[in-house]
Amino acid sequence: MSDLETRIAQGRGDATAELVLRGGTVWDLVTDTMITGDVAICGDTIVGIGADYAGHAVVDVTGLTLVPGFIDTHLHIESSLVTPFEFDRCVTPLGVTTAICDPHEIANVIGIEGIRYFQQASEHTLMDIRVQLSSCVPSTEMETAGARIDAEDLAALMKHPSGIGLAEFMNYPGVIHRDPGAMAKLRLFDGRHIDGHCPQLSGRDLNAYAAAGIRTEHEATTADEALEKLQKGMRVLIREGSVSKDLHALQPLLTDVTAPYMCLCTDDRNPLDIGEEGHLNFMIAELIRLGTSPLAAYRAASLSGAEAFGLKDRGQIAPGRRADIVALSDVASCRVAKVIAGGVVVDEAAFASRGGVAPVARRSVRAPHLTARDFRTTPNREETDVIGILEGKIITEHLHETVPIVDGDTPPDPARDLARIAVVERHGKNGNIANGFVRGFGLKAGAIASTVCHDHHNIACVGVDYADMALAANRLAQIEGGFVVAQDGKVLAELSLPVAGLMSLAPFEQVRADLECLRSAATSLGVTLREPFLQLAFLALPVIPALKITDRGMVDVRRFELIG
Amino acid sequence: MSDLETRIAQGRGDATAELVLRGGTVWDLVTDTMITGDVAICGDTIVGIGADYAGHAVVDVTGLTLVPGFIDTHLHIESSLVTPFEFDRCVTPLGVTTAICDPHEIANVIGIEGIRYFQQASEHTLMDIRVQLSSCVPSTEMETAGARIDAEDLAALMKHPSGIGLAEFMNYPGVIHRDPGAMAKLRLFDGRHIDGHCPQLSGRDLNAYAAAGIRTEHEATTADEALEKLQKGMRVLIREGSVSKDLHALQPLLTDVTAPYMCLCTDDRNPLDIGEEGHLNFMIAELIRLGTSPLAAYRAASLSGAEAFGLKDRGQIAPGRRADIVALSDVASCRVAKVIAGGVVVDEAAFASRGGVAPVARRSVRAPHLTARDFRTTPNREETDVIGILEGKIITEHLHETVPIVDGDTPPDPARDLARIAVVERHGKNGNIANGFVRGFGLKAGAIASTVCHDHHNIACVGVDYADMALAANRLAQIEGGFVVAQDGKVLAELSLPVAGLMSLAPFEQVRADLECLRSAATSLGVTLREPFLQLAFLALPVIPALKITDRGMVDVRRFELIG
Repeated sequence: MSDLETRIAQGRGDATAELVLRGGTVWDLVTDTMITGDVAICGDTIVGIGADYAGHAVVDVTGLTLVPGFIDTHLHIESSLVTPFEFDRCVTPLGVTTAICDPHEIANVIGIEGIRYFQQASEHTLMDIRVQLSSCVPSTEMETAGARIDAEDLAALMKHPSGIGLAEFMNYPGVIHRDPGAMAKLRLFDGRHIDGHCPQLSGRDLNAYAAAGIRTEHEATTADEALEKLQKGMRVLIREGSVSKDLHALQPLLTDVTAPYMCLCTDDRNPLDIGEEGHLNFMIAELIRLGTSPLAAYRAASLSGAEAFGLKDRGQIAPGRRADIVALSDVASCRVAKVIAGGVVVDEAAFASRGGVAPVARRSVRAPHLTARDFRTTPNREETDVIGILEGKIITEHLHETVPIVDGDTPPDPARDLARIAVVERHGKNGNIANGFVRGFGLKAGAIASTVCHDHHNIACVGVDYADMALAANRLAQIEGGFVVAQDGKVLAELSLPVAGLMSLAPFEQVRADLECLRSAATSLGVTLREPFLQLAFLALPVIPALKITDRGMVDVRRFELIG
Repeated sequence: MSDLETRIAQGRGDATAELVLRGGTVWDLVTDTMITGDVAICGDTIVGIGADYAGHAVVDVTGLTLVPGFIDTHLHIESSLVTPFEFDRCVTPLGVTTAICDPHEIANVIGIEGIRYFQQASEHTLMDIRVQLSSCVPSTEMETAGARIDAEDLAALMKHPSGIGLAEFMNYPGVIHRDPGAMAKLRLFDGRHIDGHCPQLSGRDLNAYAAAGIRTEHEATTADEALEKLQKGMRVLIREGSVSKDLHALQPLLTDVTAPYMCLCTDDRNPLDIGEEGHLNFMIAELIRLGTSPLAAYRAASLSGAEAFGLKDRGQIAPGRRADIVALSDVASCRVAKVIAGGVVVDEAAFASRGGVAPVARRSVRAPHLTARDFRTTPNREETDVIGILEGKIITEHLHETVPIVDGDTPPDPARDLARIAVVERHGKNGNIANGFVRGFGLKAGAIASTVCHDHHNIACVGVDYADMALAANRLAQIEGGFVVAQDGKVLAELSLPVAGLMSLAPFEQVRADLECLRSAATSLGVTLREPFLQLAFLALPVIPALKITDRGMVDVRRFELIG
């Protein structure tokens, strides 16, 4: 933070500006006007626009359009499968200069030590990582997580400057039914920002949830749902993750009228999608392609996010605001030519000069050794509940099928696309194993397994061959977590994620390449889903309807209870 | 503040709502949609919309359109000439449920005791009075005020819940030239809201001012000026006071695109105008009449003000927001049928049940006894500076005239509309008297005098007869300040303002009647200005260009210095 007097002096031109961007045109999103002239920057702050400035350093942005840095208003950096430092290196060059993250994936594995890791990392990244405090660890009482975070734990974390408030309050039944633990957390953050998560909630239930003071929400999957949430005082974050893709459904609601109150987020986006499509830059281009006005799209990507989360120091290229600037060579396609983050020109040298933080949560996979027998069911009837996958959504269908009992088990039936799904507790707490059925993978042989399994991050395994399931799950313990594809007693592909079983220590480019191998291997087993591991990761998340599975069994999310 | 659990329970319909508004239609300003159904209120908070609710009390709003309570984003309540309690009774029924005030008038008379008076009053009024802390007391070093407030004084006042931040930073030269006292105050409020005041500042000077972190501003008098301020990161507050009337000039800039970033304010509005025209309700109707879309006008009047000042708990009729609701019988003309302020139905009974605070700053007028001789100039040349009034503006022209020296004095010349203007120190500090010329009153006889004289609130007196000037000024000391019109040795009309020489203890209706008498009396002296006392009040304010007068002499505001 540069000195107040210095900023004023450089803004007035009484002192030479530290950095000047010359030759570009500022597109002011407040007034929808174009402003020529230099942009003067002092430290991490813009101090002048629309005038001539002398600069100790001058960056040529001739012919480029300058817009405020993009704000990802809700995401779990862990879902990028890389550390915050690699996430920074992967995404900041795409124009994302603020990421409002919820570190609840790592928090479910190792508790507040995981949150502290993100807080410390935020002090070194080029992008401004804002670390919301995770509200629901574990997400429910129907799962075994590696840690539990109560209100008093959160209180100890509240002073870090990266904080904005409380992260997505997923335990919406706990809110509307006034669970004491939920109430304690809401009270602790009274007057601060409280982020929401309440898929498909409506009517008086939604009124009750909003009455608790929750002001942002990203789970709307239809325009009607989003409209009601906006009407009820929640700013809607349009999400386009790797699994949950709501942009097309919500795009019609994003107009010049609503854009000041709508934002963009990715929630969970993996490096493959970031590489193939992009990040918020992709969302902006896609919105414009679908007919959203460029003003509405760019506002939602920056200014509106800043307003929704009370980040008054950003969202506009104006004096006194953070020097978060994206220089575009093309507005409609959001082609990013250059990025300034907090006054720093984003390039490999800038990334190389960052400080670091040692990774935490090594050797976190402590699951029981499994054998093929562990994946047998012990049914007392042929009627069975089946999780029905909806590709590109994290909500599922609750299906009912009849499966003949064979040898005291209801085995998978690839012909009907009925695969075994198992969740194995891996935090060394109880060794729980729950088995069920899933439809939608298209698996014809072998198994896939993962420690990325929201939000408890136990081992999730899908297969049509029990021995391959055991092999894949056991391999995860050896590689400190990650993804495995196995067939006929062999590992076909794998990716090690040794930080909490969630994040790689490799560069994002390597992770991207490994993911492509995993995708190919899964496809070779018959898998028809574009993102089988991400889709799998959400089948164990019991705060998203309709039918899910945890280490404790199948969960009917609408009734918020385990089923027999 | 009602209990969190109670709000959620009432929102869900698990408990009976305290208050239900039935039969109306909510106009949601976020989505520009109409929502039917009950509005449920628990304590001071809305807990439900768009559904059926049972209520302990039900208010019938059949056929009415419900919009969020209006927010006056910048005003000096003292300019209403009544106490905060009478201001509340006068203005809340017009739909103003939040008033962001700067008590710097009373603060200039008695310092922080005056600010504390407003803070305490805010605990009792039906409207939510937010008390910004006065940044510039005195406004400059070119005047004698009754008090001085430094950064450490402000620090002692910062904890009161009515605070938002630092009030209008009028000493803009102090900001852009890095005056140490100004810097100390800015630093004290780092990270909080800092309101601005920088008439006609532009270019790199405006960049420097905005770079200091100042984010709202209300002094733009042209659309070009307002546009530049918006572009430079300041939210623009359109002002329509009793003297400064900027609505017509700025209205073209208020569109659906800019409305989320523009607000409304009155700054200084007297009870006559409130009675004859209205308050923010008048501004809304006038904007719509001039062609502004109703959505833009109502947003600027509520939602955008809440966003600009970080008041996340209001600005929309939605669960979790303050129950500040205006029920309109007509939208375009902003006809207010009923008002709910903080969950209380606004009526005489509600006003009668408020608590009170004893008035402060009695007997504050301690001026020297004056005689006719005190108003003589002692010129050494016939060329003289003349303040040129621009009716309806607080900026003035700097005129130059030649006045023959008669008997060692340059006397008033009614034929050329050249009246004597004098400012007399009245805080008991030094008894300064400064004399000069003013053009624009049209005065043909007698004198008018006032203790409402921004911001130092010394005695300001305009006349063409020195004996009448002395009479009027001396009378002010006897009535504890206020307004006097005198002619031929007699007081024609007067209004006593015994609270700091600024506010009456009478009901606003009585003050209104007295002001009409004063206006008639002034007119009988030839005065052609519609608001002679308000116009007079700003002639001594040396932070508004171009030529002003204080107790220390004439001030060239553009050079920010006293002239010889």
